[in-house]
Amino acid sequence: MTSWIRFQSSEGGVGFGVLEDDSIAEYTGDMFGDAQPTGARRNLKDVKLLSPCVPSKVVALWNNFYALAEKLGKAPPTHPLFLIKPPMSVIGPDEPIRRPKAYSGKIAYEGELGIVIGKRCSDVSEDEAEQYIFGYTCINDVTAIELLNEDPNFAQWCRAKGFDTFSCIGPVIRPRADFDWRAAHVKTHLDETERQNYPLSDMIFTPAQQVSLISQDMTLMPGDVIAIGTSVGVGSIKDGSSVTVSIDGIGSLSNVLSARV
Amino acid sequence: MTSWIRFQSSEGGVGFGVLEDDSIAEYTGDMFGDAQPTGARRNLKDVKLLSPCVPSKVVALWNNFYALAEKLGKAPPTHPLFLIKPPMSVIGPDEPIRRPKAYSGKIAYEGELGIVIGKRCSDVSEDEAEQYIFGYTCINDVTAIELLNEDPNFAQWCRAKGFDTFSCIGPVIRPRADFDWRAAHVKTHLDETERQNYPLSDMIFTPAQQVSLISQDMTLMPGDVIAIGTSVGVGSIKDGSSVTVSIDGIGSLSNVLSARV
Repeated sequence: MTSWIRFQSSEGGVGFGVLEDDSIAEYTGDMFGDAQPTGARRNLKDVKLLSPCVPSKVVALWNNFYALAEKLGKAPPTHPLFLIKPPMSVIGPDEPIRRPKAYSGKIAYEGELGIVIGKRCSDVSEDEAEQYIFGYTCINDVTAIELLNEDPNFAQWCRAKGFDTFSCIGPVIRPRADFDWRAAHVKTHLDETERQNYPLSDMIFTPAQQVSLISQDMTLMPGDVIAIGTSVGVGSIKDGSSVTVSIDGIGSLSNVLSARV
Repeated sequence: MTSWIRFQSSEGGVGFGVLEDDSIAEYTGDMFGDAQPTGARRNLKDVKLLSPCVPSKVVALWNNFYALAEKLGKAPPTHPLFLIKPPMSVIGPDEPIRRPKAYSGKIAYEGELGIVIGKRCSDVSEDEAEQYIFGYTCINDVTAIELLNEDPNFAQWCRAKGFDTFSCIGPVIRPRADFDWRAAHVKTHLDETERQNYPLSDMIFTPAQQVSLISQDMTLMPGDVIAIGTSVGVGSIKDGSSVTVSIDGIGSLSNVLSARV
């Protein structure tokens, strides 16, 4: 069972490799292409984990779980409904989510599965789509929720979800072949309290359908992430609280919301 | 008067430089930093112009002109209303806008001024903002307009505007100091017919206000582009028609909508 990570070493360089218990087997080359082990190993405690990939965009879905659609009283969509989060919104495990300076309102967590694209793809069919999925990760898709409908004429999805540090990704990427999403749950803890626990089998568009349909809207690049949408149990985070998104077979991603000075 | 361009040479390499009549003075280094003339010159007709910058994101505003707000019957916003267009949506002058394979509906042009960011900026004040503007360019912000409200519960701005080739940018970047936006008009021609002709002085948020306010939402990077929004006169493009966006002091950007096979 392989788990890909990216890290910053104590010397400051950025590397990537495979997590094996408490140590890292370092690799060189391209994680999505010709990655080769260097033979070097590091202790996990000697490095800082980074977001396991560096997306050129995060495509974030809304209304992609039947349980949430029912709760919201919305019909399941006929095409993935998404917004785009910019690259600077991405942080890795244990990095702080920073409250925007000019915003004192509620900030919401959304525990989600993330699809990591492995190969450039455009206009691929559902049958072909699977092979463009490199693997899966955990996401906390953070939202400055009071901005969303601040203007009655324009839902500000990109602004409310696009702040720096509002796309928490990690801790690892589990390769597609090692992860059975149909059997997994997403659990989100706010500090010690479980707030979300929903089965991925309840999703409306499957990962292959998402990759196929979104690739008909725009070219997806290696390292791009699709945040596949959340289900019921979303809530707000107090400054200083931590959010932990856990998915069986992938791992746990924790981030604390820090007030900005 | 300097005009920065990027180009692909007949040998296939990508370069940048300054346009001087029909020739290009080549530069090396970073357009936004330590650009130095190489001394080499090329004929404009020997190169293919590219988008003059490579944005990590295009921030595209809606409802930023008083005339359009009035026509739509919408109040002027209190903060820039924007969506994010992905990097792969960007094309340069004379590159074809490609109709999405699965979409046979109307495709709209929007002639706009573009702000090109020169320095990384986050949380800058309106007074400071000017210095982060490298210069200005022309934009055609293309929209698959029938997708926008296809789902009654979610306005699909990112999807409708995010297709590959839907952000036409160029032909040059005119440095901030050489361009007086208050005196300029945006003119859009559909084939030979003028369809838009509006004064930039009618804009709601000035460039400095936009950079300041958007930098409070997300870090802007060198080469990022803010498409500042369009005004009245938007319409749809027939397959095979060309759209030319012209701004006094910058130049003319033409792109043809090509049907996809």
